[in-house]
Amino acid sequence: MEFNWSEIALNTAKELEEKIMPLFGTKKAGENVGTNVSGDVTKYVDKVAEDLILKRLVPLGVNVVSEEVGTVDNGSDYTVVVDPLDGSYNFSAGIPIFAFSMGVFKGKKPVYGAIYEFLPKNFYEAKPGKGAYLNGERMRVNEPEPEKEALSFYTRGRCLGLVRKVKRVRVLGAIAVELAYVARGSLDGVFDIRNYVRPTDVAAGVLLVREAGGIVTDEGGREFKVKLSAAEKTNIIAVANERLLNTILEAMKDEP
Amino acid sequence: MEFNWSEIALNTAKELEEKIMPLFGTKKAGENVGTNVSGDVTKYVDKVAEDLILKRLVPLGVNVVSEEVGTVDNGSDYTVVVDPLDGSYNFSAGIPIFAFSMGVFKGKKPVYGAIYEFLPKNFYEAKPGKGAYLNGERMRVNEPEPEKEALSFYTRGRCLGLVRKVKRVRVLGAIAVELAYVARGSLDGVFDIRNYVRPTDVAAGVLLVREAGGIVTDEGGREFKVKLSAAEKTNIIAVANERLLNTILEAMKDEP
Repeated sequence: MEFNWSEIALNTAKELEEKIMPLFGTKKAGENVGTNVSGDVTKYVDKVAEDLILKRLVPLGVNVVSEEVGTVDNGSDYTVVVDPLDGSYNFSAGIPIFAFSMGVFKGKKPVYGAIYEFLPKNFYEAKPGKGAYLNGERMRVNEPEPEKEALSFYTRGRCLGLVRKVKRVRVLGAIAVELAYVARGSLDGVFDIRNYVRPTDVAAGVLLVREAGGIVTDEGGREFKVKLSAAEKTNIIAVANERLLNTILEAMKDEP
Repeated sequence: MEFNWSEIALNTAKELEEKIMPLFGTKKAGENVGTNVSGDVTKYVDKVAEDLILKRLVPLGVNVVSEEVGTVDNGSDYTVVVDPLDGSYNFSAGIPIFAFSMGVFKGKKPVYGAIYEFLPKNFYEAKPGKGAYLNGERMRVNEPEPEKEALSFYTRGRCLGLVRKVKRVRVLGAIAVELAYVARGSLDGVFDIRNYVRPTDVAAGVLLVREAGGIVTDEGGREFKVKLSAAEKTNIIAVANERLLNTILEAMKDEP
């Protein structure tokens, strides 16, 4: 069976939008309603978003990997790795950086990725070898001059000296969104070396960055591989070019 | 002459919104069109926004202090300290964190402050002794537990160890917005110790934080005073409570 992933992603995102946006910036959204497969707190809005996602994707007969529930194995060739709401702290706090993220795999091969930023209504998507798009327009990573980069990073202490080596630091609190921003050229790089990132957070964003001409690696500079599991935690570096990758890898050597 | 500052601020914000939002995330917005009174680059969108602000505020007969033009002295008792677009890098890059900020002073005394976040359409305002409001509803700073704080900070190297002492770091790139977030309880604190912040960036936000129950100081923990000048550069700390203030001041002692 063939699927129109673009249509599925956009329709799902729009349905989610209708359901969750009334909760934006409310106390209700942030209420603790349980613990997910990674041991993190599940917020009310996470639960509402995931319930809708499962209702929509599981009946397609595909496997679904999602943040709160883990894996729904339908015995399909296709696995949809989804974060119903990336940046749910921001969402609850009224900070307008959050998104829906959905990466599709046939076996272990990525075949489609989409990120939908609810508030600016930006729909990012990519297919392997076909490029990355923002609302239908081709997007490319930025070409920053050395030391003029805008970089987002998450660390428990390592590499903080990088604040002196780039022009701008942003820490936006939603890695799927930040990967889309790297693909679009709004940021020049984002990395998280807290062993904190889950495949659900990055499955779509990794494809977006690569299809926009960027590089995605693990903390050692090796090709980043998306594992099809919700409980996995990992490190990731996504950058516009090799120079910035090397700057980051050097900083990690200096401050182990 | 008496002014209805609330009405002036909201009408100005709405007019600005109509004018600049079509430029959000466009190359055009970020084009360099000159240098301002502080020696910083003026982007096209900064110029468009300020032109509108001056056209609207100068005819009121008040003094206007604005980022690009400096001071327009009308010999009035009232001085309006305005940042037409705080977060203009974000705006140009398509990152949805940016706002209009307007603080009003009679002599040197603050009498009104407003911040308008264009994308979520949030209108924050405060009057001395009357409290702080978001879209008409009273707002208060958060009451975070120790080491559970969400903190934004800007430094060229000092105090980076704080990433280990708070729960969440955000660096959103628009200090007026971040001050509004502290007032609202979306963040527990924000500080900038790069000698970079201008009175135009913070004139409204300082009042918002104080009226919401928070504390605003200089880098030594002394009461922060807004200077009515566009060229001044300064440091600022704004926090929900004294404990977090002390944590920040301690971190500065440790890492001079």
